[in-house]
Amino acid sequence: MRTKLKSIGIIHVPPQDKEASGEKDAVTISKIEVFRKYQDGLKDVEGFSHLVILYLLHKSKSYSLHVRPRLDTTLRGVFATRSPNRPNRIGVRVVELLERNGNKLKVKGLDAEDNTPLLDIKPYTPKDRIENIKIGWLEGKI
Amino acid sequence: MRTKLKSIGIIHVPPQDKEASGEKDAVTISKIEVFRKYQDGLKDVEGFSHLVILYLLHKSKSYSLHVRPRLDTTLRGVFATRSPNRPNRIGVRVVELLERNGNKLKVKGLDAEDNTPLLDIKPYTPKDRIENIKIGWLEGKI
Repeated sequence: MRTKLKSIGIIHVPPQDKEASGEKDAVTISKIEVFRKYQDGLKDVEGFSHLVILYLLHKSKSYSLHVRPRLDTTLRGVFATRSPNRPNRIGVRVVELLERNGNKLKVKGLDAEDNTPLLDIKPYTPKDRIENIKIGWLEGKI
Repeated sequence: MRTKLKSIGIIHVPPQDKEASGEKDAVTISKIEVFRKYQDGLKDVEGFSHLVILYLLHKSKSYSLHVRPRLDTTLRGVFATRSPNRPNRIGVRVVELLERNGNKLKVKGLDAEDNTPLLDIKPYTPKDRIENIKIGWLEGKI
């Protein structure tokens, strides 16, 4: 079974943007650099306003099945959180595509560490948008 | 760098449901079995109406950077499609959680192959829901 991940690019998060953000709802502008080898796969992405970005949570060293989220005081199951410390350390975020320039994408809303390895880019489609949702323990916290 | 994926469960897709579906918009009911070892991580998931499921596209053997999608006649960049044949063969789907019974989840909308290895479960939150989107080449096709 082919299960080894490979980096297809790098996510650059300018430090000044992170500092300027301050409050929790501030939105980060990041640059996604897709390695030249994979650039042809970006054809047509500029038609989409939003993309689903998969990346390696490379700073995560271990995980436990119960985590205390930043927004809560109670231990929650890791699969009921977006904690970076999980059995497979893959992060998923929806971002707004602001600009494409060759193998570089400027995006909004990617809450990742600088130099994060990029794993995949997928178009955000109506199937990803759910109208009425219940958000369990997060209710009232975000 | 820890980049090797491990299966944390199995996605079971009853064949009768797949056959009964017929048209493209039919919605599959699947059962996600999380291995006992990871069951404690499911605490609190039942509060969420929708979950983001990550799984291994285990039937995919190779990829190319240009693909002709099922819905189109033109070659598109792989990152502008949800094709299973991609550099890192990880699938992402939003599903409705119908029922949790211990280490088993009954979900709606998971368009995966039977016996697909499960990689991760994340709660679907308001950040995943985008109001106004442009969907490029998919416009008018779905």
